[in-house]
Amino acid sequence: MPYEYETDGAAIYRQSFATIRAEAELDGFAPDEEQVAVRMIHAAGLVGLERDIRFSPGFVAAARAALEAGAPILCDARMVSEGVTRKRLPKDNDVICTLQDAAVPGLAAEMGNTRSAAALELWRPKLEGAVVAIGNAPTALFHLLNMLEDPACPRPAAIIGCPVGFVGAMESKDALWEAQPVPCCIVKGRLGGSAITVAAVNAIASRAE
Amino acid sequence: MPYEYETDGAAIYRQSFATIRAEAELDGFAPDEEQVAVRMIHAAGLVGLERDIRFSPGFVAAARAALEAGAPILCDARMVSEGVTRKRLPKDNDVICTLQDAAVPGLAAEMGNTRSAAALELWRPKLEGAVVAIGNAPTALFHLLNMLEDPACPRPAAIIGCPVGFVGAMESKDALWEAQPVPCCIVKGRLGGSAITVAAVNAIASRAE
Repeated sequence: MPYEYETDGAAIYRQSFATIRAEAELDGFAPDEEQVAVRMIHAAGLVGLERDIRFSPGFVAAARAALEAGAPILCDARMVSEGVTRKRLPKDNDVICTLQDAAVPGLAAEMGNTRSAAALELWRPKLEGAVVAIGNAPTALFHLLNMLEDPACPRPAAIIGCPVGFVGAMESKDALWEAQPVPCCIVKGRLGGSAITVAAVNAIASRAE
Repeated sequence: MPYEYETDGAAIYRQSFATIRAEAELDGFAPDEEQVAVRMIHAAGLVGLERDIRFSPGFVAAARAALEAGAPILCDARMVSEGVTRKRLPKDNDVICTLQDAAVPGLAAEMGNTRSAAALELWRPKLEGAVVAIGNAPTALFHLLNMLEDPACPRPAAIIGCPVGFVGAMESKDALWEAQPVPCCIVKGRLGGSAITVAAVNAIASRAE
């Protein structure tokens, strides 16, 4: 006997989002934030994540306006850049990950930092007005904050700062949240990662569920 | 003042894995399973995940032997295939995701199933002895189980079955665990996803931490 299961992708999304809205505590979010939070919970498979999600005032509007103006999306890892659903993007926006650039290993050695952090140096020509999506490396988020300490560094329009893990993830997100150099979104604590980050990008890119 | 943080990638890994081993309950795992579980917890940023991880007897040995013999890794999503660390692979193994193949949308329409499920039909010529890594779509795992109901279908060497979410994820993983058509690994319930799946592949590919 073959296994029977829901095979209609649209129905799967509808049922998933209905379950999340029935179970999660979303009252604290503005409507545009709620749509983003629901997708982040969906990607994590984890009701309760909403308690750790923080949006700075105007974050969703700023990030969405940037994408609608054609801004690129700068990602710290290929798992982030590959996850962005191209057909949701309003302006066929560039989705950029510089981690595999041939210059990165040398740059990392010179800087005495990780390749994930060094790769951000290659963002500079694209950084002004961009949407930043950091879903993997705490060192990338810390390095971005240090770059932005320089008033001459170009400013992104918004930062999704959701690195994951046990060393530096919590600390780098707390630092972003305290500094708020531009509108930003974080998941507090250890949780985060590429799937949650991609979900935020995809939700901002299009209101369609 | 610049932010100060750990910038040595090897030290970050060491500290992360030490934290996980101090906090997680890993006594139930065999040594080779423990290494895989630690990496899965690391990718999720979630101590406690170990309670939901299940390895069938001989899973790690079967998957590792397949990779050491040069088997391909078949992935349901680009976020999985892009996450596999190529330099950890023992035989420069092929890492394959067929989801973007031009034939898939038509096949999905014909089958009345998702593109994620339809993409698996293109795995058939590579499936014998392969390592399967399903980290996104419950429909892909269900369709694989249905393919394997046919005794004429080629058998993979091992299945990492970790789709994530609210519709079909738990059910498809329970079905895999009950059927165990080949050695397998699952995360019970809603949790799972590309990062956890990639972590399992990377741990099996090399014992190096």
